[in-house]
Amino acid sequence: MSTAPSQDTETLRVELGERSYDIVVGAGLIKDAGKWIAPVLARPRVVIVTDENVAAHYLAPLTKSLKDASIRVDAITLPAGEQSKSFAQFEKLCESILALGIERSTTLIALGGGVMGDLVGFAAASILRGLAFIQVPTTLLSQVDSSVGGKTGINTAHGKNLVGAFYQPKLVLADTATLNTLDRRQLLAGYSEVVKYGLIDSPDFYEWLENHAQALIDGDMDKRRHAVLTSCAAKARVVAEDEREGGKRALLNLGHTFGHALEAETGYGDALLHGEAVSIGTVMAFDLSQRLGLCPGQDFGRMLAHFDALKLPTDLRRLNAGDWTVDRLMAHMSHDKKVEDGKLTFILANRIGQAFISRDVQNKDVRELLDTWLKNKI
Amino acid sequence: MSTAPSQDTETLRVELGERSYDIVVGAGLIKDAGKWIAPVLARPRVVIVTDENVAAHYLAPLTKSLKDASIRVDAITLPAGEQSKSFAQFEKLCESILALGIERSTTLIALGGGVMGDLVGFAAASILRGLAFIQVPTTLLSQVDSSVGGKTGINTAHGKNLVGAFYQPKLVLADTATLNTLDRRQLLAGYSEVVKYGLIDSPDFYEWLENHAQALIDGDMDKRRHAVLTSCAAKARVVAEDEREGGKRALLNLGHTFGHALEAETGYGDALLHGEAVSIGTVMAFDLSQRLGLCPGQDFGRMLAHFDALKLPTDLRRLNAGDWTVDRLMAHMSHDKKVEDGKLTFILANRIGQAFISRDVQNKDVRELLDTWLKNKI
Repeated sequence: MSTAPSQDTETLRVELGERSYDIVVGAGLIKDAGKWIAPVLARPRVVIVTDENVAAHYLAPLTKSLKDASIRVDAITLPAGEQSKSFAQFEKLCESILALGIERSTTLIALGGGVMGDLVGFAAASILRGLAFIQVPTTLLSQVDSSVGGKTGINTAHGKNLVGAFYQPKLVLADTATLNTLDRRQLLAGYSEVVKYGLIDSPDFYEWLENHAQALIDGDMDKRRHAVLTSCAAKARVVAEDEREGGKRALLNLGHTFGHALEAETGYGDALLHGEAVSIGTVMAFDLSQRLGLCPGQDFGRMLAHFDALKLPTDLRRLNAGDWTVDRLMAHMSHDKKVEDGKLTFILANRIGQAFISRDVQNKDVRELLDTWLKNKI
Repeated sequence: MSTAPSQDTETLRVELGERSYDIVVGAGLIKDAGKWIAPVLARPRVVIVTDENVAAHYLAPLTKSLKDASIRVDAITLPAGEQSKSFAQFEKLCESILALGIERSTTLIALGGGVMGDLVGFAAASILRGLAFIQVPTTLLSQVDSSVGGKTGINTAHGKNLVGAFYQPKLVLADTATLNTLDRRQLLAGYSEVVKYGLIDSPDFYEWLENHAQALIDGDMDKRRHAVLTSCAAKARVVAEDEREGGKRALLNLGHTFGHALEAETGYGDALLHGEAVSIGTVMAFDLSQRLGLCPGQDFGRMLAHFDALKLPTDLRRLNAGDWTVDRLMAHMSHDKKVEDGKLTFILANRIGQAFISRDVQNKDVRELLDTWLKNKI
C-alpha cells in the first residue's frame, strides 16, 4: 500500500465537447491544490464555499496552497447538513458571493460532500448566469457520485433536488486522504454508490470489489483510488452518452426509486443517509428483479451476501418502519422526477452487471414487494 | 394598414442548433395559440404563468385556445411588477408549479412582459433541472428584447438580473394586438430597445424608423410587425454568434451601462422604466462617443432629434436627480455584470449603425460626462 502523497495520482478526462474536464484522484491533493487549480482559472481569483465540519480540516491547507499559487482567495463557510440545500440558503449564498464583488471570471470552489457540490454548483450555474466552478469532494459518496454528471440543485417542499441545473465543473480534485476523516458509517454509505457501478454494467469491477472492498473501507489508499477512478469512469461513460438524462443515464438510478421513498419517509436526515437508502433500495431492486423472474435468485443472493458482509444496511427492519404503509411509499415514488406520463421507472437487472431500464413494472408487483418488506418477510 | 387577425403573421427562425426555435409575430395570435403551441409540446400539458394585469386581458382567450386544442391547462397568476423577480417569488413559483404534480414533459408558458419572461424562464430552466417553456410576450419591450437571447433571471440585493440562466424557449408567440392594451409610456419605453437595433448595426432600419416610428407608436399593425420582426432578427444575428455573451453580444448593451446606473439610483421602479433608462443611457453613450471624438456630432444630433420628436426621455433633468453624485453613479456601474477585471465596458459608436465594444474608456472621461449631465450642462 502506497501512502506517498500527491505522487500516486491518476487523471480521468470526462469528454463532453467544450464542457470536458479532468477528475484528478489521489491522496494529498488538497495541499497541492494550487498546482492543479491555477491552470484552469480564467483569472486568479476564487471563492471557496465549504461547511463548518469540512472547514475545520481542509479550509486552511486549501487556502494556503491557492495563495501560494498567487490566487486571490475568499471563503464562505455554511452550516453542515442537508438543510443547507434550501431556497433560503441558496439565496443567502448567492448574495454572500455577490457581496464579495466577484466578476464573471471568478471561479467558485465547492469544498465538501454532496450537499456542498449540489448547492455551490447550482449557485455557480446561476450567479451572473454562470460562473466557473471546481469541485473538491471530501466524501466517498461525492467523489464517486457528484464528481461526474453535472447535476446540481436544491431541495423543495415537494422533494429533494427538484430545482437545479445541469452544470459541469472545470475540474474535480478527489483527494482520497480526506476519506480518513470520514466515519465508517459515511464511508459505507458512499460505498453503496461504488458497488452500484459494478452492479449496473461492470461484472469485473463487481468481482474486484468483492475481493477488495473491505481493504478499501479499512483505509487502503491504492484500492480507494482505483475504486473512485473506476466509479467515475463508469459514470462518465454513461453520462457522455446522455448528458441531460433522456435515456441511458437512468441506469445510474439503480436503487434510487426505492431509496428516495425511504429517504422521504425518514425525513432526509441522519436517521437514514442517502447512501444507506440507496443500499436498501438496490437490494429491493434486485429482489424485485428476481421475483419477476428477470434475474436468477443466485445473483440476488450473491449481492445480498456482499452487502451483508460489509454491514451495509440491506433491509427495512433496521429502520423505524413500524407505521409505514405501502400507500405512503408508493406516493413518495410517484413524486420522483423519474415519473413519466404517470408511470414509475425502475432500474432492474438480468444479472449482476446487467441492469436495464424498465417502464412497464406493474404497480401491483411493486405493492406486493413493499408489502412483503414492510411485513419483514424477506 | 391591415387589421386582419392571424393572417398577416411572419415567422423568424432563431438558429441555435438543437436549441433553435421560431418567433411568430402577428396580430391576434393569442386566440389561435393552440394551433401554434400544440406541435411543439412533448405532451399536451402546460402551466401558464402570468401576472394579474395581463391575466385580466389574455388568460381566458389563451386558456380557451389551448383547451380547444386538447391541451391540459393549469394557470398561476402572480402580482404584477418588478418585485416578482425576487428569490422569494422564485421559490413560491417553483413550489406552486411542483404542487401541480407536473412532469418533465410539462411545458411552462410565460404570458406577460419581461418580468414574467425572466422569472418563468429561470423557473423553467431550474425545475427538474429544465422544463420546456414558451414565451407569449405582451409588451413591445419583451417582444423585441426578451424573445431572443435566452436570458432569464431574478433580482438580488446587489443588482438586477444577477442570478439566472441562459435558457432558450421552444417557441415565442408575439401577438402585436396586445400592444393595444399598453399605455403610451410603456410603448415608448419598449421603442427605445427597437431603435437600439438600428443604432447598433442597421442604418437602413434606423432610417425606416425615423420615417415610421410615429405610425408604429400610434397603432399601425403592419409597422409594428415589421419593427418587432426586424428587431428580433437583428438580435438573433448577434446572439447566434455569441450565445453565452463572451463577445459581440455585448453590443446589445448599448445604453445599458449608463441605464443600469440610472435604474439603480431610482430603485428599479415606476419612477424610471427600464426602457426609459436605456433611452437616456443611449443618448449618453452617443454623447460620450462624440465627446471622445469617435462619432460625428451630427450623428449625435440626429439620434437626439429622433428621440426628442417621439418624446422619449433623453436626459436626467426630468428625473429627480438633484442629490445624485458622480461617485454614486460610478459605483452603480462598477457593480454591473459587464465589469471585467475592474474595467467598465461601454458600447460606443462611430456612426449611427456602427456601434462597437470599448474596454478602454478612461474613468475620468466617464466622470466628466456624468458631471456635465448632472449639472444639466448638456
